Amino acid sequence: MPQFLNSADPDFEARFAEFLTTKREDAPDVDETVAAIIADVRKRGDAAVIELTERFDRLPLTPATLAFSAEEIEEYCAQVPPAEREALELAAARIRAYHEKQLPEDASWQDATGATLGWRWTPVSAAGLYVPGGLASYPSSVLMNAIPAKVAGVERLVIAVPTPDGIVNPLVLLAARIAGVDTVYRIGGAQAVAALAYGTETVAPVDKITGPGNAFVAAAKRRVFGKVGIDMIAGPSEILVIADAQNDPDWIAVDLLSQAEHDESAQSILITPDEGFGRAVAEAVEKRLETLERRAIAGPSWRDYGAVITVKDLDEATALSDRVAPEHLELCVADPEALSSQIKHAGAIFLGAWTPEAIGDYVGGPNHVLPTARSARFSSGLSVLDFMKRTTLARMSPGALAAIGPAAETLAISESLEAHGLSVRARLDRLNEEG
Amino acid sequence: MPQFLNSADPDFEARFAEFLTTKREDAPDVDETVAAIIADVRKRGDAAVIELTERFDRLPLTPATLAFSAEEIEEYCAQVPPAEREALELAAARIRAYHEKQLPEDASWQDATGATLGWRWTPVSAAGLYVPGGLASYPSSVLMNAIPAKVAGVERLVIAVPTPDGIVNPLVLLAARIAGVDTVYRIGGAQAVAALAYGTETVAPVDKITGPGNAFVAAAKRRVFGKVGIDMIAGPSEILVIADAQNDPDWIAVDLLSQAEHDESAQSILITPDEGFGRAVAEAVEKRLETLERRAIAGPSWRDYGAVITVKDLDEATALSDRVAPEHLELCVADPEALSSQIKHAGAIFLGAWTPEAIGDYVGGPNHVLPTARSARFSSGLSVLDFMKRTTLARMSPGALAAIGPAAETLAISESLEAHGLSVRARLDRLNEEG
Repeated sequence: MPQFLNSADPDFEARFAEFLTTKREDAPDVDETVAAIIADVRKRGDAAVIELTERFDRLPLTPATLAFSAEEIEEYCAQVPPAEREALELAAARIRAYHEKQLPEDASWQDATGATLGWRWTPVSAAGLYVPGGLASYPSSVLMNAIPAKVAGVERLVIAVPTPDGIVNPLVLLAARIAGVDTVYRIGGAQAVAALAYGTETVAPVDKITGPGNAFVAAAKRRVFGKVGIDMIAGPSEILVIADAQNDPDWIAVDLLSQAEHDESAQSILITPDEGFGRAVAEAVEKRLETLERRAIAGPSWRDYGAVITVKDLDEATALSDRVAPEHLELCVADPEALSSQIKHAGAIFLGAWTPEAIGDYVGGPNHVLPTARSARFSSGLSVLDFMKRTTLARMSPGALAAIGPAAETLAISESLEAHGLSVRARLDRLNEEG
Repeated sequence: MPQFLNSADPDFEARFAEFLTTKREDAPDVDETVAAIIADVRKRGDAAVIELTERFDRLPLTPATLAFSAEEIEEYCAQVPPAEREALELAAARIRAYHEKQLPEDASWQDATGATLGWRWTPVSAAGLYVPGGLASYPSSVLMNAIPAKVAGVERLVIAVPTPDGIVNPLVLLAARIAGVDTVYRIGGAQAVAALAYGTETVAPVDKITGPGNAFVAAAKRRVFGKVGIDMIAGPSEILVIADAQNDPDWIAVDLLSQAEHDESAQSILITPDEGFGRAVAEAVEKRLETLERRAIAGPSWRDYGAVITVKDLDEATALSDRVAPEHLELCVADPEALSSQIKHAGAIFLGAWTPEAIGDYVGGPNHVLPTARSARFSSGLSVLDFMKRTTLARMSPGALAAIGPAAETLAISESLEAHGLSVRARLDRLNEEG
């Protein structure tokens, strides 16, 4: 049974606070193992990567076969049925169109002193995308990571995807080709992250690593952060649905299950002003669970971490939602725009009952790599900006330096940074000499 | 002696590559100590913070004195001489004006299927700024961290600044007041980072922590990353000056020294197409070093990590500069705009000989918190965006769902995520029933 909470209950605040802090994932401490793997890859390069891939993925490779060849990619891609190919192409086109709107603008202006100020955006030169192998090897995630990088203008884009026992997902390779990925390495785990960050004889190092992975991948990304850029460290994900009684309980039920089926530690939450509707949704969930393919995952997720919360009105619903700061937020209410404008913290908002969250996972256009585990309080979904960086620009005229230089000199002296002050003073003296 | 390199020399590539990878900082491994401190603060709250502050800063505090009182702040601020106060106010106004231009725009549009897409930016609710104590307690850094947060719309903005032996820098408190900081805690180290991230009885937790610090602070930020957002992990900083022979060697010398005086592991690099000019600058550096207040820091930095690189032309200079990806880049050449447009990787560019880097440290307007240690390849200086996050928005009309829903269903099935497909199918079936 999921938790049933009602904001009118006297113990609600205590129960909701406890619900918020319930730990859903016990990440194993693999930090030492990962540190050793990274050190090994830095020291022995390809040899270490090949040895570790043989050990963990039972896959013998050589430097020449670390990456898929063009012919192999061609062959695998040819295996994909037309319907799936077309769906991937539609998704890619929509994701591209959305992300192109994110391209930031450069700026330049002159202020009252005559100083010219501004900034300029440039792409990261090379990016590496991590794609999990096995069950969680999602072609949609390839598109969601690779397309923003391409739109940003990344010159060299590579993927690392493990293929345990040599099992390859042709859709992943097709998604990579559609997105314009240059090279696909069949390596995974901490050894792949280390190879991308530091390079080996065969794998050229990249500047930024993104993409989800298991505990080893997450620990490796945390360790190489600084040497390269990384995206977020993904935690267990969640959906929160705010729905009034005008909805079909079964629609809301499958929406909740579409999160629960990802992972036993995923979380699905319904907030509704109608207690009876909440019960109806919970019943619909149970009914769907009887036949759902992934009921062995979705069932425990819903029972252990799911919740149905009854509130007195929609204002209270948004306030509670902000405390959850959900990765995905569905607003199945009469005026979803009005409700949306009240929300402060959410990774992605899906407005109205005709927008199931699954649309956003594949073909909506916005990115499905989103901040999990309450991190929407301070971070955003993956975007073109994650593959770009901003250089600030400043040019002083002699007049501008005369106007603001003395203040800089004063502050430099107050911070005991004499050379800072001298670098301004040398120029101010010249101006004074020249009169 | 700094290194003298010439790109015409046969061993140049080898020497430059080695120069690039020279490690300038041996960060002590304080990770275990920091993990214990964080665990202690999470467990014992205020009591742990107070005990650790007494141990490390020799400062006895109580929960009531963890933060400066309004009266104390008033008293300290009154000690600041008018010239310094005015300089801080000028700096604050210029930093605010620059950062206001960074405020991002929301977007909303309808695509050809009738889907409404877009995004909305919102500020982080609460941010904590770390300010080092002692020698590196810079009021300018308070402005550079606090003003972007205020411009972003952060509701609660606090500072943690250690005051070892009770020694307070009045300028730091005045900068905090000018910038609009709400609370200043006199705590530091890993214990301050832990208190800001997890909260104690007295310190309310924040969502984002920024600001520089020593090895303990850096390790603590790395550890709490995920629970809260952090800015970058700052490494040893650097300046690269590209200058032609038309410059005054002494101006360039003091510019190089203004970086070298920060830290023995700071790096100052001159690239010039004129070998004789390079020698003249090196001589001017030696002359300035004879009397510079911080020669005991700037001297070793320049001798151990400084370099003068002669190149055949300015194109080669920009190519080498991109391989360094410097935090600060000065372009002291006839047409700095043209040269700037060729640069791919730099934290901040200072155009023309009238723009010493020190202007950017204080009053230029752009942020002085910039990516160090080659991380300008993938990251940007601190900005308003660091204190905001973006929520993506999507609304399907029934027609839009009919147009793109089937592709989502196809992809969901191909990824074995049945509930994802069902959440789309349930709605498509309704549309079909309704005809």
